[in-house]
Amino acid sequence: MEFDSEYISSLRKEYQRAVLNPEDLPEHPADAFKQWFDLALQENVLEPNAMVLSTVYKNRPSSRVVLVKDLNRSGVVFFTNYRSKKGRHLDENPWACVNFFWPQLERQVRIEGFIEKLPEADSEKYFYSRPRLSQAGAIASEQSAVISNRDELDNRMNELMSLPEEVILPKPEHWGGYRLIPDYFEFWQGRAGRVHDRIVYEAGGEEHWVKCRLSP
Amino acid sequence: MEFDSEYISSLRKEYQRAVLNPEDLPEHPADAFKQWFDLALQENVLEPNAMVLSTVYKNRPSSRVVLVKDLNRSGVVFFTNYRSKKGRHLDENPWACVNFFWPQLERQVRIEGFIEKLPEADSEKYFYSRPRLSQAGAIASEQSAVISNRDELDNRMNELMSLPEEVILPKPEHWGGYRLIPDYFEFWQGRAGRVHDRIVYEAGGEEHWVKCRLSP
Repeated sequence: MEFDSEYISSLRKEYQRAVLNPEDLPEHPADAFKQWFDLALQENVLEPNAMVLSTVYKNRPSSRVVLVKDLNRSGVVFFTNYRSKKGRHLDENPWACVNFFWPQLERQVRIEGFIEKLPEADSEKYFYSRPRLSQAGAIASEQSAVISNRDELDNRMNELMSLPEEVILPKPEHWGGYRLIPDYFEFWQGRAGRVHDRIVYEAGGEEHWVKCRLSP
Repeated sequence: MEFDSEYISSLRKEYQRAVLNPEDLPEHPADAFKQWFDLALQENVLEPNAMVLSTVYKNRPSSRVVLVKDLNRSGVVFFTNYRSKKGRHLDENPWACVNFFWPQLERQVRIEGFIEKLPEADSEKYFYSRPRLSQAGAIASEQSAVISNRDELDNRMNELMSLPEEVILPKPEHWGGYRLIPDYFEFWQGRAGRVHDRIVYEAGGEEHWVKCRLSP
């Protein structure tokens, strides 16, 4: 079976919703992100908090969707199993990037930087705020390990979920948060003829950011 | 201004649309992709052909959205300016990955492999199939270069677009296609409590692929 190349190659949407100039964006890129994120919420973008996280392992990139749990002037926070594939990558190489794409808004945000682990107390605080089912999931799954079928996983989940509500499901030691400390942000607004607007912020040290426009 | 952390951290959607087992997927991952892509088209997913492409430069990952132009058993095709940031990264390091995320279907496809340039004839064929406005865009823009404002770009576009229709806009030498040759595919179906289904294909040589299930 061959992909219908003629068809896929002709899929194209002309972006024409908006125009982006550097002066439209606040001085701090985290504030710019907040403005864009608020609009995404307001316009009911599906899963606006989903971002593609890329890591590097042995010189190869690897990427997957994770959910952002906080994004402010100190960085971009997400949680995972530290023994997952991405956790092992980040142990070896702390450089990472995230990409938000909101097709409805014809917008994309690219953020690059390095990663550090959150303090254990923050990971605990967040873990115990999650629904019980997600807590059980974090305990039951040895993330990224090969398993022969789903049954063993479902059995462990059933055992955990059948415990009385008053039994605390303890956060596994290897589960917790990361913070990406950015040195690069790009705000991308799609434009007609692929002549997009790209406004970049580069870290100039001491909470100072330098804005410029890139050719599309 | 601080991000409203309480709010963002509480954004969560329980995935419950479907279940994925290895036996649901055909032997070749390109065929599996086609099935999923066809469903995405059928259900009017916004820009189903958008994928996040990640490259590596000096041990740091970098990612951006590009549009897939073909995906079949020989690989994943897209086009760009070879002198763009991604082009320069790929000159130094041919490893790359792409990520498709279709939140409406609660699905994600991850593909990893190495990149090679398409033959010039294929790049020409595709270039001349594009709308004239996109051809002009490819000529007018020195992709990823810093520019002081949008005017110079708009002026170049206007000049090109005011040429008579019978004047061919020639494909720039530095514009063309890449093919990602995969050695890894992951098909991800979101499930409740973050206990997702993850089915992986790894290249076993000679068009042979080995399927397995990963722990979520």
